[in-house]
Amino acid sequence: MSVITLLTDFGTKNGFTGVLKGVIWTIAPQAQIADITHEITPQNIMEGAITLWRAATFFPSGTIHVAVVDPGVGTSRRPIAARIADQYFVGPDNGLFTPLMEQAEKRRQPVRVYHLNKTQFWLPEVSNTFHGRDIFSPVAAHLAAGTPIDHLGVLIDDPVRLIMPQPVRTQFGWRGQIVLIDVFGNIATNLEDKLVKAAEKVTMKIAGRIIEGLVQSYGESKSGNLVTLIDSEGFLEVAEVNGNCAKTLQVTVGDPVELIIS
Amino acid sequence: MSVITLLTDFGTKNGFTGVLKGVIWTIAPQAQIADITHEITPQNIMEGAITLWRAATFFPSGTIHVAVVDPGVGTSRRPIAARIADQYFVGPDNGLFTPLMEQAEKRRQPVRVYHLNKTQFWLPEVSNTFHGRDIFSPVAAHLAAGTPIDHLGVLIDDPVRLIMPQPVRTQFGWRGQIVLIDVFGNIATNLEDKLVKAAEKVTMKIAGRIIEGLVQSYGESKSGNLVTLIDSEGFLEVAEVNGNCAKTLQVTVGDPVELIIS
Amino acid sequence: MSVITLLTDFGTKNGFTGVLKGVIWTIAPQAQIADITHEITPQNIMEGAITLWRAATFFPSGTIHVAVVDPGVGTSRRPIAARIADQYFVGPDNGLFTPLMEQAEKRRQPVRVYHLNKTQFWLPEVSNTFHGRDIFSPVAAHLAAGTPIDHLGVLIDDPVRLIMPQPVRTQFGWRGQIVLIDVFGNIATNLEDKLVKAAEKVTMKIAGRIIEGLVQSYGESKSGNLVTLIDSEGFLEVAEVNGNCAKTLQVTVGDPVELIIS
Repeated sequence: MSVITLLTDFGTKNGFTGVLKGVIWTIAPQAQIADITHEITPQNIMEGAITLWRAATFFPSGTIHVAVVDPGVGTSRRPIAARIADQYFVGPDNGLFTPLMEQAEKRRQPVRVYHLNKTQFWLPEVSNTFHGRDIFSPVAAHLAAGTPIDHLGVLIDDPVRLIMPQPVRTQFGWRGQIVLIDVFGNIATNLEDKLVKAAEKVTMKIAGRIIEGLVQSYGESKSGNLVTLIDSEGFLEVAEVNGNCAKTLQVTVGDPVELIIS
Repeated sequence: MSVITLLTDFGTKNGFTGVLKGVIWTIAPQAQIADITHEITPQNIMEGAITLWRAATFFPSGTIHVAVVDPGVGTSRRPIAARIADQYFVGPDNGLFTPLMEQAEKRRQPVRVYHLNKTQFWLPEVSNTFHGRDIFSPVAAHLAAGTPIDHLGVLIDDPVRLIMPQPVRTQFGWRGQIVLIDVFGNIATNLEDKLVKAAEKVTMKIAGRIIEGLVQSYGESKSGNLVTLIDSEGFLEVAEVNGNCAKTLQVTVGDPVELIIS
Repeated sequence: MSVITLLTDFGTKNGFTGVLKGVIWTIAPQAQIADITHEITPQNIMEGAITLWRAATFFPSGTIHVAVVDPGVGTSRRPIAARIADQYFVGPDNGLFTPLMEQAEKRRQPVRVYHLNKTQFWLPEVSNTFHGRDIFSPVAAHLAAGTPIDHLGVLIDDPVRLIMPQPVRTQFGWRGQIVLIDVFGNIATNLEDKLVKAAEKVTMKIAGRIIEGLVQSYGESKSGNLVTLIDSEGFLEVAEVNGNCAKTLQVTVGDPVELIIS
């Protein structure tokens, strides 16, 4: 029983995401399929990369993740499949898998990337606008049905990489940025919890507001208060208790945050 | 083959709902998973409770329902699992299961609630912000994989209960309220069909409008007309034929409706 | 292992689509279920028909498609099931399956339509407002569980048909219309690629704009340019490179497009 996940910027209105499942089940009838999301901002590769990275590791070993945020569809950008740690990834070669690769490399786990060039594992007719359907889904399904990844293409050593936003050391702490805003308006940053492990005092500056201290949970402060806490992935998060922090602060992904520690 | 359902206020953009499926399939690879909805208004426990209650009984006996509308996550509010009638429910102890419990009690079906306190059935690391992932999904998966519910926690007799809005008797009928507005703008109330069974004449008053009589189906009246009918759950519903009644009347959940019978 | 798909205008907020899955798995526990979409514009049968037609053929042979866009629910409109080519379709008799029937007839594939009138295959209680739950899902599940389609109803030869928008010959080419706008704002038309196969020069006129030539892929032109290309279904599509063409042109489904060939 193989698990395949789907992450795209297709939206759910036009039926495209259903089509991916139809293609997969035609080739691999036993596959279990989960949607991670289909609401990545159209063509926002960075948002897709971060969303996939935060979700992927909670899936079983051997899971096959199909990710399609693909502004270069139909051009010379390569289709790829990758073995990263104990899972598989299929999609365009545009950096979608960068944070997963970097994490695996840091942990000395295997990272192997293949340029998909064996057309016998694709749909017979390949359009120039819908490789999610014509290339990536069938390749994922063949993986699920037992085809080894190195039969699907040739090993490459130069996959496209995104430049991930890194925190910058400042005189009194770190400057980071907003990487994700969730449905509650909670603000995830790229500042890891290890940055505050030894700190006696933690202050966050965001959108001209100053937030003192760290709380353990939303419920620890009063309704309407802004709080800093460690999010479920181990990064600093700014939230408004029982409110929508991103709306209150009028901030968006990419905006700066400043961490002051002492 | 176990069925697990998911109902949350997480939205579908950030990938959180995909993560729940990854956690479940890691523990219970055979589980069939259905989304009931992930679009409960953030932290609206009443809306979650009513939506779950209207959907749950159409699932097979033994289905495990995971419901996460959880403003108290990370505080001392208890995580619970419940056996209600012939199904299982897992989520925070905040009243989400109240209508299901009341219905089962009225029908003299079993209701047993357990405080989840056996951490060996949770993820190894538990965050303070995402118990859907760290506690509720793994517990549901262990149930699906065959762990008896009384191994997961201890029986309690004081689960938190919502106070459900009850119709009030008036001189000429009943005063109720709007409990759900669907995508078509149809308005579900908390007035049961039994209230009109013996009536010769039925009149609904809502937002200053008067609707005479009951129709059997939307198609029975003309486009644009307001009609009262029995909804698919056995409650009085107000609708606009081929239109969006809630928009036309500018009403929202919780607004009053008045039933006059003679 | 049977595949069942769901296409509705129910939206995903109220839990109705989850209910369909509960009903199906109660009768056919092994069925694999895929959502095609639940975001058809409420009661827009034409949009539902075109979306289903573009998705259905990518599913395995034997797939059972449940489609519910059903303004006539509860009236005398018939519930039907159809065998079209090598798949099954279940829904209201209002034209939802017209493009699929026309395509199969053109290809001389089987088309057989049954009026569902065997109530033993429905839920015991049938509402007047939710036949997706009470009739169509249980019938689909019985098909998945092995009941032959001709046991579910009686053969008919007069299913309701939509009048599909057909391209019209003009002095210099064809006049067509917009049939679908996707999440990227790309505009699908009803002009098939065969209309331009022999053309030396292709010009599209849409919303007062003139687009010269055909490109092979979005990436072939500059950001912000309007381009015409062949979409993934073999029809002419108008798109804005890295932009939202439908927003830029302020067009909507049903608006005219003009193809000039020489």
